Amino acid sequence: MSTNKPRLRDLGISIGTLPTGPLNAITDVPGVRVGVTTLIEGDGPLVVGQGPVRTGVTAIHPHEGSTFLEQVPAAIDVLNGAGEMTGHALVDEYGLLSSPVLITNTLSVGAVHQATVEWMSEQHPEIGPREWVAPVIAETYDGALNDVAGQHVHREHVRAALDSATAGPVPEGNVGGGTGMLLFGFKGGTGTSSRQIEVDGKIYTVGVLVQGNFGSLPDLLVDGVPVGRVLEPTIGERNLRFRRQQRREGSIITIIATDAPFSERQLGRLCRRGMLGLGRVGSTAGHGSGDILLAFSNAPENRVPRWPAGPLLQTTRLADEWIGPFFSATIDATSEAVLNAMVAAETMTGRDGITAHALPHDELQAIMRQHGR
Amino acid sequence: MSTNKPRLRDLGISIGTLPTGPLNAITDVPGVRVGVTTLIEGDGPLVVGQGPVRTGVTAIHPHEGSTFLEQVPAAIDVLNGAGEMTGHALVDEYGLLSSPVLITNTLSVGAVHQATVEWMSEQHPEIGPREWVAPVIAETYDGALNDVAGQHVHREHVRAALDSATAGPVPEGNVGGGTGMLLFGFKGGTGTSSRQIEVDGKIYTVGVLVQGNFGSLPDLLVDGVPVGRVLEPTIGERNLRFRRQQRREGSIITIIATDAPFSERQLGRLCRRGMLGLGRVGSTAGHGSGDILLAFSNAPENRVPRWPAGPLLQTTRLADEWIGPFFSATIDATSEAVLNAMVAAETMTGRDGITAHALPHDELQAIMRQHGR
Amino acid sequence: MSTNKPRLRDLGISIGTLPTGPLNAITDVPGVRVGVTTLIEGDGPLVVGQGPVRTGVTAIHPHEGSTFLEQVPAAIDVLNGAGEMTGHALVDEYGLLSSPVLITNTLSVGAVHQATVEWMSEQHPEIGPREWVAPVIAETYDGALNDVAGQHVHREHVRAALDSATAGPVPEGNVGGGTGMLLFGFKGGTGTSSRQIEVDGKIYTVGVLVQGNFGSLPDLLVDGVPVGRVLEPTIGERNLRFRRQQRREGSIITIIATDAPFSERQLGRLCRRGMLGLGRVGSTAGHGSGDILLAFSNAPENRVPRWPAGPLLQTTRLADEWIGPFFSATIDATSEAVLNAMVAAETMTGRDGITAHALPHDELQAIMRQHGR
Amino acid sequence: MSTNKPRLRDLGISIGTLPTGPLNAITDVPGVRVGVTTLIEGDGPLVVGQGPVRTGVTAIHPHEGSTFLEQVPAAIDVLNGAGEMTGHALVDEYGLLSSPVLITNTLSVGAVHQATVEWMSEQHPEIGPREWVAPVIAETYDGALNDVAGQHVHREHVRAALDSATAGPVPEGNVGGGTGMLLFGFKGGTGTSSRQIEVDGKIYTVGVLVQGNFGSLPDLLVDGVPVGRVLEPTIGERNLRFRRQQRREGSIITIIATDAPFSERQLGRLCRRGMLGLGRVGSTAGHGSGDILLAFSNAPENRVPRWPAGPLLQTTRLADEWIGPFFSATIDATSEAVLNAMVAAETMTGRDGITAHALPHDELQAIMRQHGR
Repeated sequence: MSTNKPRLRDLGISIGTLPTGPLNAITDVPGVRVGVTTLIEGDGPLVVGQGPVRTGVTAIHPHEGSTFLEQVPAAIDVLNGAGEMTGHALVDEYGLLSSPVLITNTLSVGAVHQATVEWMSEQHPEIGPREWVAPVIAETYDGALNDVAGQHVHREHVRAALDSATAGPVPEGNVGGGTGMLLFGFKGGTGTSSRQIEVDGKIYTVGVLVQGNFGSLPDLLVDGVPVGRVLEPTIGERNLRFRRQQRREGSIITIIATDAPFSERQLGRLCRRGMLGLGRVGSTAGHGSGDILLAFSNAPENRVPRWPAGPLLQTTRLADEWIGPFFSATIDATSEAVLNAMVAAETMTGRDGITAHALPHDELQAIMRQHGR
Repeated sequence: MSTNKPRLRDLGISIGTLPTGPLNAITDVPGVRVGVTTLIEGDGPLVVGQGPVRTGVTAIHPHEGSTFLEQVPAAIDVLNGAGEMTGHALVDEYGLLSSPVLITNTLSVGAVHQATVEWMSEQHPEIGPREWVAPVIAETYDGALNDVAGQHVHREHVRAALDSATAGPVPEGNVGGGTGMLLFGFKGGTGTSSRQIEVDGKIYTVGVLVQGNFGSLPDLLVDGVPVGRVLEPTIGERNLRFRRQQRREGSIITIIATDAPFSERQLGRLCRRGMLGLGRVGSTAGHGSGDILLAFSNAPENRVPRWPAGPLLQTTRLADEWIGPFFSATIDATSEAVLNAMVAAETMTGRDGITAHALPHDELQAIMRQHGR
Repeated sequence: MSTNKPRLRDLGISIGTLPTGPLNAITDVPGVRVGVTTLIEGDGPLVVGQGPVRTGVTAIHPHEGSTFLEQVPAAIDVLNGAGEMTGHALVDEYGLLSSPVLITNTLSVGAVHQATVEWMSEQHPEIGPREWVAPVIAETYDGALNDVAGQHVHREHVRAALDSATAGPVPEGNVGGGTGMLLFGFKGGTGTSSRQIEVDGKIYTVGVLVQGNFGSLPDLLVDGVPVGRVLEPTIGERNLRFRRQQRREGSIITIIATDAPFSERQLGRLCRRGMLGLGRVGSTAGHGSGDILLAFSNAPENRVPRWPAGPLLQTTRLADEWIGPFFSATIDATSEAVLNAMVAAETMTGRDGITAHALPHDELQAIMRQHGR
Repeated sequence: MSTNKPRLRDLGISIGTLPTGPLNAITDVPGVRVGVTTLIEGDGPLVVGQGPVRTGVTAIHPHEGSTFLEQVPAAIDVLNGAGEMTGHALVDEYGLLSSPVLITNTLSVGAVHQATVEWMSEQHPEIGPREWVAPVIAETYDGALNDVAGQHVHREHVRAALDSATAGPVPEGNVGGGTGMLLFGFKGGTGTSSRQIEVDGKIYTVGVLVQGNFGSLPDLLVDGVPVGRVLEPTIGERNLRFRRQQRREGSIITIIATDAPFSERQLGRLCRRGMLGLGRVGSTAGHGSGDILLAFSNAPENRVPRWPAGPLLQTTRLADEWIGPFFSATIDATSEAVLNAMVAAETMTGRDGITAHALPHDELQAIMRQHGR
């Protein structure tokens, strides 16, 4: 269903010159699976604990199996730290991701953490008596539309996202953890994109998924065109009430997946290029923004078993001299994932009647044409 | 009650030459409050979800008021990252701690996070509609004795720890988050210590609280004496079953408090000296250990209000040239806090009949004497 | 003289909406002084040690006095570390810059370091018997045009840059350390820009100086317009020989100065926004690029004397809630400084007859017009 | 010659329980080569530029060939950053060491950098026209005895150290970069030690070399025994004049080499254990101390050629689960290297007649015996 939503390229706009994968989604990286639970209930005034509810949770499995059993090289980096991504110290120390990645609202991190630990413990009874986990749970803030203090994401929602995760098209816009999010004063949410790079006759993919909730309207750039500044005078009126509410500056979580064999150090390099991709759509990484990036490689040859058979691990990596196109791919896919989130998101009215409008596609196209695109 | 337990100095052993505060505890730093909930229930074989339960939660309030409203300069650093401390990115970015600090078992991080957010939201209704929090929740692993996968720390336990926190003596040993922990093959848990430093006629205090669960017996050092190596041949026998179970390497969370006016950068420097204090009691920061340190200064003049009245903040700091004694104080208080945890901890039998023995005080004293102390 | 060179704004192009300072230069920050020594000698084939010479050194004094005696809060961050900036560990540890900043070619870092130490030792005889220095020396690579292995920057050149540094207009293009540098396949070099921000009735300035030597032509963006992609088909021909030589990916050093009272932590935040500014002109932070940023605040009230009179330092800082416009200012001034370097730079023929062409101003203007600017 | 100097084990004292390599030196790691140039000239009052000279330079080649051509995995970490180690950003970014490592006095970093670049450029003429280097040059401060501002380390001294470097016994004490250094109020300098670890039938070596110049006498610990506190009352008299001079707090550079196949991330873990080893001999990582550690692995299978033949690199690493003994080895070898530097160092009189006394071996042995060793 959500796959019928328009995307940036449907509007004749694209970012950069590298080809996308078939789905232009993080799931173009073979094995990556995404699941979402979307929670939309109630209307009217905010009553903490009752709603209205405009939130959800997104689950990403790095490969087709259990990341607890088959860990993947990973890195995390922070552009602006006004946010949360649990599991950070462990990823840094071991250079491995050993859990799925979940993204939700700011105040549901605890509930999602608890449910994920429970879900993993059931699948792997060693967790508890002999093993432990520190799963990666990230968040952005949807309190402008959602009863975020009500902690409406429950264990069954988390399990549903984890269990239903699949390859294939990724729903975008008002779905999953991105349900109640905003981008540049418009409705935001979940977005994805991918790029393909050929190295020595082999095709590798970089896929990005973002949960985006940041930005002021005047800062919005679309492929370098100052769309925000052009739109502001006319948009200001209709969005007025909403924007008075929007005091806090939001966040963006960026997940970068690749099947190219990169080490954790190289994946950290990709994270820093994801930052540049955010900057190119207008992010200034505002003071109150949690701009945290995680990159992983699920290349089968580099996965690390939980219980290695012997002391030596053989790994393969692309030499750094070949990494350049992956930098461009990460920048472009990150930018396009943010814009896909905006293009797919639909106007939503949340708590206290606050409405976040969808980015007007026709006006966007007109502005792009005026700027020679 | 727990204040009747013996401490290292009761055995005639002390670390370093600086004077302690009156309580030799983190609560010697004026305003710091500590609360614990200790959960001990059931016996016999492990049944996940039923027990036996040997766990708890410890809460630390940095000062007498709300840390949400009056934030304090803080820093976090990691010696070995096989663990979790949530809220890390926010402390890094703002240089501020804006929540209480809670310490629990590894798999209860989520539940404690959720309950802390709920508790803070109730006290500060802005959290949700206009504000957000990313509280600091840390953990060590008690699965050798406790049904850790059963997630037995519930919201009411967290609230009890937060609400009951007080100044005054700090319970040590098998209490709070430290209830089911181990140290160097003996029973471990919660420990604390403090030091005083005079600068220019003014007395400042450094207080440390640890939740300790790390180490192999042969590595244990007490004031430099290789107590572990001496004890090992005789202790090996009685601890045999336990030590076969102890596959994973544990962790230690170290909280360093001071009323000296230090900036977040300087507090980061104290964290790194806490690491040296861990090394001096024998830590090798084992592969599976989550050795994470947080330092804060609650000097009233440097607290940052949530909603500053104007754009300029005046702050005071001790010049770095005067920081040396605080380095020694942090090293010594961290070492002594670990040893206090061991001295206070009592023999405990947990799940599956596994017993962790208390460090034998008389043998310890004998060994120290043999080594000229 | 160099102030007669055209600048980006002379072509009718500007970046962002914030006002510049009167000079649109890092020297708009009161007290900042810049000096350059430009070395251009010889022609023809490269003979290591003899030339041709196309290099130099740039010196930046953070304020009107001695930074050794009056240290300023500072931070360094690295977008891509294929480069050198000495003094990094000291700036990190103390949060202070305690020397001038010098920028030169890659292989002259040692000579410039030595000469700077000598110059500082002469002015401050305590250096040696009682004090020491770890000055900040940075570099980019000019080996495409210059006999870089010949180490043609000598002590007298360094002293000249240090001694001649002044407030006022800053020379751009083929001057100082930037003499032999390239940007996006065109001639690059030294560039500068500034922005003003009003906070509570007071005007603060952010000034940026770059020494730029990075980028592939197709990546060049000017205010979001893909100038590089448009120019490439026609430029390819004339630049052919040069671009075959340009194997290595260059670097950019970015110095961010402000008179706003920011702490070292906040200055680190500005560094990360400088990275976004680089991304917006097309940087992908290429594998071989040394993209290192240093930010300092010379607000008089926050300078730290080398020998503090007493143990307490009083400091002032802008609350983080007011930092947002400084983020935008840093992004925009960094972008514009890079473009100013390109606009000012003139076609240069270096070693082995290799020619780096100036960015054609008229073609740039035409492309901008075609894109609705 | 210098191999006739006594070492810690000659006094019947050793650190830890792991076996040393045959030389108990960094050169037990096959391929590692060390060279020193020692400069001792003149006596009497300090005349800057004339002397007295008590300094030198130490060169370490990571393997038997050119590190420029065959790069090795490496990591750098900082316990306290009041010092310099150039090349840090490059090691971080690429995870590789691509030059020899040189250690000298604080104010000769520039000269040694310049000479090392020249030496490398001569051997590899690509450096300059097509390639570049950012060599690792580190330092500690010998200004208490040496005319450090005189910059007496010249290019020929650097070349001599680089060219004469050999496997075999490593000179200790007053040699190379360590010539004029102090440790805990006694004469210090260069020291080394090693440990062997068996993994799956294969013997690996960890070797450490330090250039040590830190510590206050009361802090000195020898295998946990508070030797400094015991010695202080009697030593105070004879060292009085010297200690009045010793205002600044010194530094220690620690180089950790291994032939075990570790990745750069794992080598960073070894650096942090080196810190614990410094703490165990009494380091508090004083405010003015530059405590910087570099670790490399020269396992042949993991070296990275400068010009890789194809895009894929195969590497091998020891699984982290086997790293524990390497942590202990690093801690113990670092401690013993510092103590070896003290035991080998001989009383030296430097500028202005200042004398640094050798650690009295007999008193040390007596104190150790009194403490049950």
